[in-house]
Amino acid sequence: MTNQNKTRVYRGEDFAQLDKRYRTQLINSMPGIKALQLVGTRGVEGQENLAIFNSIFHVGANPPYLGMVVRPDSVDRHTWQNILATGSYTLNAVGEDFYAKAHQTSARYEKSQSEFEMVGLSPLYREGMLAPFVGESAIKVGLTLQEYHRVACNDTQVVVGKVVYVELPESLLFDDGSVDLVAAGTVGSIGLDGYVASRWLGRLSYAKPDKAATSIFTERG
Amino acid sequence: MTNQNKTRVYRGEDFAQLDKRYRTQLINSMPGIKALQLVGTRGVEGQENLAIFNSIFHVGANPPYLGMVVRPDSVDRHTWQNILATGSYTLNAVGEDFYAKAHQTSARYEKSQSEFEMVGLSPLYREGMLAPFVGESAIKVGLTLQEYHRVACNDTQVVVGKVVYVELPESLLFDDGSVDLVAAGTVGSIGLDGYVASRWLGRLSYAKPDKAATSIFTERG
Repeated sequence: MTNQNKTRVYRGEDFAQLDKRYRTQLINSMPGIKALQLVGTRGVEGQENLAIFNSIFHVGANPPYLGMVVRPDSVDRHTWQNILATGSYTLNAVGEDFYAKAHQTSARYEKSQSEFEMVGLSPLYREGMLAPFVGESAIKVGLTLQEYHRVACNDTQVVVGKVVYVELPESLLFDDGSVDLVAAGTVGSIGLDGYVASRWLGRLSYAKPDKAATSIFTERG
Repeated sequence: MTNQNKTRVYRGEDFAQLDKRYRTQLINSMPGIKALQLVGTRGVEGQENLAIFNSIFHVGANPPYLGMVVRPDSVDRHTWQNILATGSYTLNAVGEDFYAKAHQTSARYEKSQSEFEMVGLSPLYREGMLAPFVGESAIKVGLTLQEYHRVACNDTQVVVGKVVYVELPESLLFDDGSVDLVAAGTVGSIGLDGYVASRWLGRLSYAKPDKAATSIFTERG
Protein backbone atom coordinates (compact mmCIF):
# COMPACT_ATOMS: atom_id res chain seq x y z
CA MET A 1 0.00 0.00 0.00
CA THR A 2 1.12 3.57 -0.58
CA ASN A 3 0.20 6.86 1.02
CA GLN A 4 0.59 9.92 -1.18
CA ASN A 5 -1.16 13.27 -0.79
CA LYS A 6 -3.64 11.74 1.62
CA THR A 7 -4.80 9.26 -0.97
CA ARG A 8 -4.78 5.59 0.04
CA VAL A 9 -3.96 3.07 -2.68
CA TYR A 10 -4.04 -0.72 -2.50
CA ARG A 11 -2.80 -2.83 -5.39
CA GLY A 12 -2.68 -6.54 -6.28
CA GLU A 13 -0.77 -8.34 -3.57
CA ASP A 14 -1.49 -5.64 -0.94
CA PHE A 15 -4.88 -7.21 -0.27
CA ALA A 16 -3.42 -10.52 0.91
CA GLN A 17 -1.21 -8.62 3.39
CA LEU A 18 -4.03 -6.67 5.04
CA ASP A 19 -5.41 -7.67 8.42
CA LYS A 20 -8.32 -10.02 7.75
CA ARG A 21 -10.95 -7.94 9.56
CA TYR A 22 -9.70 -4.70 8.01
CA ARG A 23 -9.84 -6.21 4.51
CA THR A 24 -13.34 -7.56 5.16
CA GLN A 25 -14.58 -4.10 6.18
CA LEU A 26 -12.83 -2.39 3.26
CA ILE A 27 -14.01 -4.74 0.52
CA ASN A 28 -17.55 -4.90 1.87
CA SER A 29 -17.63 -1.09 1.53
CA MET A 30 -16.63 -1.04 -2.14
CA PRO A 31 -19.98 -1.83 -3.82
CA GLY A 32 -21.52 1.43 -2.51
CA ILE A 33 -24.80 1.84 -0.60
CA LYS A 34 -26.11 -1.72 -0.71
CA ALA A 35 -29.64 -3.09 -0.91
CA LEU A 36 -30.69 -4.60 2.40
CA GLN A 37 -33.42 -7.17 3.00
CA LEU A 38 -34.57 -9.52 5.72
CA VAL A 39 -34.89 -12.98 4.18
CA GLY A 40 -37.65 -15.10 5.70
CA THR A 41 -37.70 -18.90 5.35
CA ARG A 42 -39.26 -21.93 6.97
CA GLY A 43 -37.74 -25.39 7.40
CA VAL A 44 -39.51 -28.61 6.37
CA GLU A 45 -40.37 -29.16 10.03
CA GLY A 46 -41.91 -25.70 10.30
CA GLN A 47 -39.01 -23.90 11.99
CA GLU A 48 -39.00 -20.20 11.08
CA ASN A 49 -35.76 -18.44 10.14
CA LEU A 50 -34.98 -14.78 9.50
CA ALA A 51 -31.63 -13.44 8.26
CA ILE A 52 -30.30 -10.10 7.05
CA PHE A 53 -28.72 -9.94 3.57
CA ASN A 54 -26.99 -7.00 1.88
CA SER A 55 -26.24 -8.68 -1.45
CA ILE A 56 -29.65 -8.34 -3.11
CA PHE A 57 -29.81 -7.37 -6.78
CA HIS A 58 -32.17 -7.06 -9.73
CA VAL A 59 -31.89 -9.79 -12.38
CA GLY A 60 -34.86 -9.18 -14.66
CA ALA A 61 -38.37 -7.72 -14.75
CA ASN A 62 -40.18 -9.93 -17.27
CA PRO A 63 -40.55 -12.47 -15.84
CA PRO A 64 -39.57 -10.85 -12.54
CA TYR A 65 -36.36 -12.20 -10.96
CA LEU A 66 -34.21 -11.05 -8.04
CA GLY A 67 -30.79 -12.37 -7.00
CA MET A 68 -28.71 -12.67 -3.84
CA VAL A 69 -25.44 -14.21 -2.67
CA VAL A 70 -25.42 -16.84 0.09
CA ARG A 71 -22.42 -18.21 1.99
CA PRO A 72 -23.32 -21.83 2.78
CA ASP A 73 -20.61 -22.10 5.48
CA SER A 74 -21.76 -19.03 7.44
CA VAL A 75 -24.82 -17.85 9.36
CA ASP A 76 -26.49 -17.91 5.93
CA ARG A 77 -26.58 -21.72 6.01
CA HIS A 78 -29.99 -22.13 7.71
CA THR A 79 -31.52 -19.76 5.16
CA TRP A 80 -29.93 -21.66 2.30
CA GLN A 81 -30.92 -25.09 3.64
CA ASN A 82 -34.52 -23.91 3.95
CA ILE A 83 -34.60 -22.40 0.45
CA LEU A 84 -33.18 -25.61 -1.03
CA ALA A 85 -35.64 -27.75 0.92
CA THR A 86 -38.81 -25.75 0.31
CA GLY A 87 -38.09 -23.50 -2.70
CA SER A 88 -39.80 -20.62 -0.87
CA TYR A 89 -38.39 -17.39 0.61
CA THR A 90 -39.38 -13.81 1.25
CA LEU A 91 -37.59 -10.44 1.03
CA ASN A 92 -38.71 -7.82 3.52
CA ALA A 93 -37.59 -4.18 3.40
CA VAL A 94 -35.72 -2.99 6.50
CA GLY A 95 -37.31 0.15 8.01
CA GLU A 96 -35.57 2.92 9.97
CA ASP A 97 -37.63 2.02 13.03
CA PHE A 98 -36.31 -1.56 13.31
CA TYR A 99 -32.89 -1.70 11.66
CA ALA A 100 -31.22 -2.68 14.96
CA LYS A 101 -33.54 -5.70 15.23
CA ALA A 102 -32.72 -6.58 11.63
CA HIS A 103 -28.98 -6.43 12.44
CA GLN A 104 -29.47 -8.66 15.48
CA THR A 105 -30.73 -11.50 13.23
CA SER A 106 -27.08 -11.91 12.12
CA ALA A 107 -26.16 -13.43 15.51
CA ARG A 108 -25.41 -17.16 15.45
CA TYR A 109 -28.65 -18.44 16.89
CA GLU A 110 -29.30 -22.18 17.01
CA LYS A 111 -31.35 -23.67 14.19
CA SER A 112 -34.12 -24.42 16.71
CA GLN A 113 -34.32 -20.72 17.67
CA SER A 114 -36.53 -18.43 15.58
CA GLU A 115 -34.81 -15.11 14.86
CA PHE A 116 -38.30 -13.57 14.66
CA GLU A 117 -38.79 -14.42 18.31
CA MET A 118 -35.22 -13.71 19.43
CA VAL A 119 -35.12 -10.16 17.99
CA GLY A 120 -38.81 -9.27 18.32
CA LEU A 121 -40.19 -9.16 14.78
CA SER A 122 -43.53 -10.61 13.69
CA PRO A 123 -43.85 -13.56 11.30
CA LEU A 124 -46.73 -13.05 8.90
CA TYR A 125 -48.15 -15.60 6.49
CA ARG A 126 -49.90 -15.05 3.17
CA GLU A 127 -51.94 -17.52 1.16
CA GLY A 128 -49.84 -19.46 -1.30
CA MET A 129 -46.49 -18.64 0.34
CA LEU A 130 -44.89 -21.20 2.64
CA ALA A 131 -42.16 -18.84 3.89
CA PRO A 132 -43.01 -16.15 6.47
CA PHE A 133 -42.94 -12.41 5.80
CA VAL A 134 -41.95 -9.73 8.34
CA GLY A 135 -45.09 -7.97 9.57
CA GLU A 136 -43.16 -4.75 10.32
CA SER A 137 -41.80 -4.42 6.73
CA ALA A 138 -43.54 -1.87 4.50
CA ILE A 139 -42.62 -3.82 1.34
CA LYS A 140 -42.92 -7.59 1.20
CA VAL A 141 -41.76 -9.76 -1.70
CA GLY A 142 -42.38 -13.50 -2.03
CA LEU A 143 -40.12 -15.65 -4.22
CA THR A 144 -39.67 -19.19 -5.41
CA LEU A 145 -36.20 -20.58 -6.08
CA GLN A 146 -35.51 -20.38 -9.82
CA GLU A 147 -31.84 -21.37 -10.18
CA TYR A 148 -28.50 -21.08 -8.44
CA HIS A 149 -24.88 -20.95 -9.50
CA ARG A 150 -21.81 -21.88 -7.50
CA VAL A 151 -19.19 -19.15 -7.67
CA ALA A 152 -16.06 -21.26 -8.24
CA CYS A 153 -13.54 -18.79 -6.81
CA ASN A 154 -14.94 -18.81 -3.27
CA ASP A 155 -17.74 -21.39 -3.00
CA THR A 156 -20.54 -18.89 -2.50
CA GLN A 157 -23.85 -19.37 -4.29
CA VAL A 158 -25.61 -16.84 -6.51
CA VAL A 159 -29.30 -17.53 -5.96
CA VAL A 160 -31.97 -16.35 -8.40
CA GLY A 161 -35.61 -16.31 -7.33
CA LYS A 162 -38.81 -15.67 -9.25
CA VAL A 163 -41.04 -12.97 -7.75
CA VAL A 164 -44.48 -14.47 -7.11
CA TYR A 165 -45.85 -11.99 -4.56
CA VAL A 166 -45.54 -8.26 -3.87
CA GLU A 167 -47.37 -6.36 -1.12
CA LEU A 168 -46.93 -2.68 -0.32
CA PRO A 169 -48.96 0.39 0.67
CA GLU A 170 -50.67 2.08 -2.31
CA SER A 171 -49.31 5.38 -1.05
CA LEU A 172 -45.72 4.37 -1.89
CA LEU A 173 -46.39 3.73 -5.58
CA PHE A 174 -45.55 6.31 -8.21
CA ASP A 175 -48.00 6.42 -11.11
CA ASP A 176 -45.46 4.66 -13.34
CA GLY A 177 -44.86 1.67 -11.04
CA SER A 178 -41.68 2.86 -9.34
CA VAL A 179 -41.76 2.82 -5.54
CA ASP A 180 -40.92 5.67 -3.18
CA LEU A 181 -38.40 3.83 -1.01
CA VAL A 182 -37.45 7.12 0.67
CA ALA A 183 -41.01 7.70 1.90
CA ALA A 184 -41.01 4.02 2.96
CA GLY A 185 -38.07 4.69 5.29
CA THR A 186 -36.06 1.97 3.54
CA VAL A 187 -32.64 1.43 5.10
CA GLY A 188 -29.51 0.86 3.02
CA SER A 189 -26.30 -0.88 4.02
CA ILE A 190 -22.64 0.17 4.15
CA GLY A 191 -19.99 -2.48 4.58
CA LEU A 192 -20.64 -5.15 7.21
CA ASP A 193 -22.44 -3.20 9.90
CA GLY A 194 -23.41 0.28 8.66
CA TYR A 195 -26.99 1.46 8.16
CA VAL A 196 -28.19 4.58 6.33
CA ALA A 197 -31.41 6.42 5.62
CA SER A 198 -31.85 8.16 2.29
CA ARG A 199 -33.21 11.38 0.77
CA TRP A 200 -34.23 11.99 -2.82
CA LEU A 201 -31.85 13.66 -5.24
CA GLY A 202 -34.30 13.04 -8.05
CA ARG A 203 -35.63 10.81 -10.77
CA LEU A 204 -34.35 11.43 -14.29
CA SER A 205 -36.00 10.84 -17.67
CA TYR A 206 -34.91 8.06 -20.03
CA ALA A 207 -31.50 9.16 -21.34
CA LYS A 208 -31.15 9.82 -25.06
CA PRO A 209 -27.90 10.55 -26.90
CA ASP A 210 -29.02 13.88 -28.31
CA LYS A 211 -30.30 15.64 -25.19
CA ALA A 212 -29.73 15.81 -21.45
CA ALA A 213 -32.13 13.89 -19.21
CA THR A 214 -34.57 15.98 -17.18
CA SER A 215 -36.14 15.61 -13.74
CA ILE A 216 -39.31 13.46 -13.75
CA PHE A 217 -40.46 13.35 -10.17
CA THR A 218 -43.86 11.94 -11.05
CA GLU A 219 -46.98 12.00 -8.91
CA ARG A 220 -47.62 9.23 -6.43
CA GLY A 221 -51.02 7.56 -6.80
CA MET B 1 -54.14 -7.69 -8.45
CA THR B 2 -56.26 -6.67 -5.48
CA ASN B 3 -56.80 -3.43 -3.65
CA GLN B 4 -57.76 -3.75 0.02
CA ASN B 5 -57.34 -1.17 2.77
CA LYS B 6 -54.97 0.82 0.59
CA THR B 7 -52.61 -2.13 0.33
CA ARG B 8 -51.53 -3.17 -3.17
CA VAL B 9 -50.96 -6.88 -3.75
CA TYR B 10 -49.67 -8.63 -6.87
CA ARG B 11 -49.58 -12.42 -7.08
CA GLY B 12 -48.29 -15.03 -9.52
CA GLU B 13 -49.92 -14.42 -12.86
CA ASP B 14 -50.64 -10.74 -12.13
CA PHE B 15 -47.09 -9.84 -13.16
CA ALA B 16 -47.52 -11.07 -16.73
CA GLN B 17 -50.65 -8.89 -17.06
CA LEU B 18 -49.01 -5.65 -15.98
CA ASP B 19 -48.00 -3.00 -18.47
CA LYS B 20 -44.39 -3.74 -19.43
CA ARG B 21 -42.99 -0.38 -18.35
CA TYR B 22 -44.96 -0.39 -15.11
CA ARG B 23 -43.70 -3.88 -14.25
CA THR B 24 -40.13 -2.87 -15.08
CA GLN B 25 -40.30 0.11 -12.69
CA LEU B 26 -42.00 -1.95 -9.96
CA ILE B 27 -39.62 -4.91 -10.01
CA ASN B 28 -36.52 -2.73 -10.29
CA SER B 29 -37.68 -1.03 -7.06
CA MET B 30 -37.97 -4.27 -5.07
CA PRO B 31 -34.30 -4.88 -4.12
CA GLY B 32 -34.21 -1.66 -2.03
CA ILE B 33 -31.66 1.17 -2.22
CA LYS B 34 -29.23 -0.28 -4.75
CA ALA B 35 -25.45 0.05 -5.09
CA LEU B 36 -24.57 2.27 -8.04
CA GLN B 37 -21.29 2.37 -9.95
CA LEU B 38 -19.93 3.72 -13.18
CA VAL B 39 -18.19 0.88 -15.00
CA GLY B 40 -15.20 1.95 -17.08
CA THR B 41 -13.80 -0.24 -19.87
CA ARG B 42 -11.63 0.04 -22.96
CA GLY B 43 -11.93 -1.87 -26.22
CA VAL B 44 -9.05 -3.72 -27.85
CA GLU B 45 -8.71 -0.80 -30.27
CA GLY B 46 -8.50 1.67 -27.41
CA GLN B 47 -12.08 2.95 -27.47
CA GLU B 48 -13.20 4.09 -24.01
CA ASN B 49 -16.61 3.15 -22.63
CA LEU B 50 -18.45 4.22 -19.49
CA ALA B 51 -21.77 2.80 -18.29
CA ILE B 52 -23.91 3.06 -15.17
CA PHE B 53 -24.81 -0.16 -13.32
CA ASN B 54 -27.10 -0.60 -10.31
CA SER B 55 -26.63 -4.34 -9.83
CA ILE B 56 -23.30 -4.34 -8.00
CA PHE B 57 -22.83 -6.72 -5.06
CA HIS B 58 -20.22 -8.11 -2.69
CA VAL B 59 -19.09 -11.69 -3.36
CA GLY B 60 -16.14 -12.19 -1.04
CA ALA B 61 -13.38 -10.34 0.80
CA ASN B 62 -10.51 -12.86 0.84
CA PRO B 63 -9.56 -12.87 -1.95
CA PRO B 64 -11.62 -9.76 -2.76
CA TYR B 65 -14.40 -10.27 -5.31
CA LEU B 66 -17.31 -8.09 -6.50
CA GLY B 67 -20.20 -9.07 -8.75
CA MET B 68 -22.58 -7.42 -11.19
CA VAL B 69 -25.29 -8.36 -13.68
CA VAL B 70 -24.92 -7.52 -17.39
CA ARG B 71 -27.57 -7.71 -20.10
CA PRO B 72 -25.65 -8.60 -23.27
CA ASP B 73 -28.55 -7.52 -25.54
CA SER B 74 -28.86 -4.01 -24.04
CA VAL B 75 -26.77 -0.86 -23.67
CA ASP B 76 -24.60 -3.04 -21.42
CA ARG B 77 -23.24 -4.86 -24.47
CA HIS B 78 -20.26 -2.58 -25.17
CA THR B 79 -19.19 -2.89 -21.55
CA TRP B 80 -19.52 -6.66 -21.68
CA GLN B 81 -17.68 -7.00 -25.01
CA ASN B 82 -14.79 -4.95 -23.61
CA ILE B 83 -14.62 -6.94 -20.36
CA LEU B 84 -14.58 -10.21 -22.30
CA ALA B 85 -11.94 -8.91 -24.70
CA THR B 86 -9.56 -7.31 -22.18
CA GLY B 87 -10.45 -8.83 -18.79
CA SER B 88 -10.17 -5.35 -17.26
CA TYR B 89 -12.83 -3.03 -15.81
CA THR B 90 -13.24 -0.37 -13.14
CA LEU B 91 -15.99 0.56 -10.65
CA ASN B 92 -16.27 4.24 -9.82
CA ALA B 93 -18.52 5.60 -7.06
CA VAL B 94 -21.20 8.05 -8.23
CA GLY B 95 -21.06 11.35 -6.35
CA GLU B 96 -23.95 13.73 -5.57
CA ASP B 97 -22.29 16.41 -7.71
CA PHE B 98 -22.35 14.38 -10.95
CA TYR B 99 -25.17 11.82 -10.72
CA ALA B 100 -26.97 13.41 -13.71
CA LYS B 101 -23.85 12.87 -15.86
CA ALA B 102 -23.67 9.28 -14.61
CA HIS B 103 -27.33 8.76 -15.62
CA GLN B 104 -26.66 10.21 -19.07
CA THR B 105 -24.15 7.40 -19.81
CA SER B 106 -27.19 5.10 -20.13
CA ALA B 107 -28.13 6.71 -23.48
CA ARG B 108 -27.55 4.52 -26.55
CA TYR B 109 -24.37 6.11 -27.83
CA GLU B 110 -22.52 4.54 -30.76
CA LYS B 111 -19.64 2.23 -29.94
CA SER B 112 -17.27 4.79 -31.48
CA GLN B 113 -18.49 7.48 -29.07
CA SER B 114 -16.86 7.73 -25.64
CA GLU B 115 -19.44 8.25 -22.90
CA PHE B 116 -16.71 10.04 -20.93
CA GLU B 117 -16.61 12.69 -23.64
CA MET B 118 -20.35 12.73 -24.34
CA VAL B 119 -21.39 13.35 -20.72
CA GLY B 120 -18.34 15.31 -19.55
CA LEU B 121 -16.48 13.01 -17.16
CA SER B 122 -12.69 12.54 -17.09
CA PRO B 123 -10.98 9.27 -17.99
CA LEU B 124 -8.05 8.59 -15.67
CA TYR B 125 -5.44 5.85 -16.04
CA ARG B 126 -3.44 4.08 -13.37
CA GLU B 127 -0.36 1.92 -13.82
CA GLY B 128 -1.20 -1.72 -14.28
CA MET B 129 -4.87 -1.12 -15.18
CA LEU B 130 -5.91 -1.14 -18.84
CA ALA B 131 -9.44 0.15 -18.17
CA PRO B 132 -10.02 3.84 -17.38
CA PHE B 133 -11.23 5.16 -14.05
CA VAL B 134 -13.49 8.20 -13.57
CA GLY B 135 -11.42 11.12 -12.31
CA GLU B 136 -14.42 12.69 -10.54
CA SER B 137 -15.14 9.56 -8.43
CA ALA B 138 -13.99 9.65 -4.80
CA ILE B 139 -13.63 5.86 -4.66
CA LYS B 140 -12.04 3.93 -7.54
CA VAL B 141 -11.87 0.15 -7.80
CA GLY B 142 -9.99 -1.81 -10.47
CA LEU B 143 -10.97 -5.38 -11.30
CA THR B 144 -9.97 -8.27 -13.52
CA LEU B 145 -12.59 -10.68 -14.84
CA GLN B 146 -12.63 -13.77 -12.62
CA GLU B 147 -15.62 -15.80 -13.87
CA TYR B 148 -19.12 -15.39 -15.23
CA HIS B 149 -22.32 -17.39 -15.17
CA ARG B 150 -25.19 -17.30 -17.60
CA VAL B 151 -28.53 -16.95 -15.82
CA ALA B 152 -30.60 -19.51 -17.71
CA CYS B 153 -34.01 -17.98 -17.03
CA ASN B 154 -33.35 -14.69 -18.86
CA ASP B 155 -29.93 -14.83 -20.56
CA THR B 156 -28.28 -12.23 -18.36
CA GLN B 157 -24.72 -12.81 -17.10
CA VAL B 158 -23.57 -12.69 -13.51
CA VAL B 159 -20.02 -11.36 -13.72
CA VAL B 160 -17.52 -11.81 -10.88
CA GLY B 161 -14.35 -9.70 -10.83
CA LYS B 162 -11.28 -9.83 -8.63
CA VAL B 163 -10.39 -6.53 -6.96
CA VAL B 164 -6.81 -5.62 -7.90
CA TYR B 165 -6.83 -1.88 -7.17
CA VAL B 166 -8.50 0.45 -4.66
CA GLU B 167 -7.94 4.21 -4.42
CA LEU B 168 -9.73 6.56 -2.04
CA PRO B 169 -9.06 9.57 0.20
CA GLU B 170 -7.51 8.65 3.56
CA SER B 171 -10.11 10.86 5.21
CA LEU B 172 -12.95 8.46 4.25
CA LEU B 173 -11.45 5.43 6.02
CA PHE B 174 -12.64 4.37 9.44
CA ASP B 175 -9.88 2.93 11.64
CA ASP B 176 -11.25 -0.58 11.10
CA GLY B 177 -11.20 -0.47 7.27
CA SER B 178 -14.85 0.43 6.68
CA VAL B 179 -15.44 3.44 4.44
CA ASP B 180 -17.60 6.48 5.19
CA LEU B 181 -19.69 6.42 2.02
CA VAL B 182 -21.97 9.10 3.49
CA ALA B 183 -19.10 11.58 3.85
CA ALA B 184 -18.04 10.56 0.33
CA GLY B 185 -21.41 11.75 -1.02
CA THR B 186 -22.02 8.31 -2.51
CA VAL B 187 -25.28 8.12 -4.46
CA GLY B 188 -27.62 5.13 -4.26
CA SER B 189 -30.18 3.96 -6.80
CA ILE B 190 -33.94 3.37 -6.69
CA GLY B 191 -35.59 1.48 -9.52
CA LEU B 192 -34.55 2.44 -13.05
CA ASP B 193 -34.01 6.16 -12.74
CA GLY B 194 -34.07 7.27 -9.10
CA TYR B 195 -31.06 8.66 -7.22
CA VAL B 196 -30.68 9.19 -3.46
CA ALA B 197 -28.18 10.64 -1.03
CA SER B 198 -27.78 9.03 2.39
CA ARG B 199 -27.33 9.90 6.05
CA TRP B 200 -25.96 7.70 8.81
CA LEU B 201 -28.30 5.84 11.12
CA GLY B 202 -25.32 4.10 12.69
CA ARG B 203 -22.86 1.26 12.74
CA LEU B 204 -23.64 -1.65 15.04
CA SER B 205 -21.31 -4.07 16.83
CA TYR B 206 -20.96 -7.72 15.79
CA ALA B 207 -24.23 -9.35 16.81
CA LYS B 208 -24.14 -12.12 19.43
CA PRO B 209 -27.06 -14.29 20.51
CA ASP B 210 -26.89 -13.34 24.18
CA LYS B 211 -26.87 -9.55 24.00
CA ALA B 212 -28.11 -6.67 21.86
CA ALA B 213 -25.64 -5.05 19.44
CA THR B 214 -24.43 -1.56 20.38
CA SER B 215 -23.50 1.51 18.37
CA ILE B 216 -19.83 1.49 17.21
CA PHE B 217 -19.38 4.65 15.23
CA THR B 218 -15.60 4.37 15.25
CA GLU B 219 -13.12 7.16 14.62
CA ARG B 220 -12.03 7.93 11.10
CA GLY B 221 -8.25 7.95 10.58
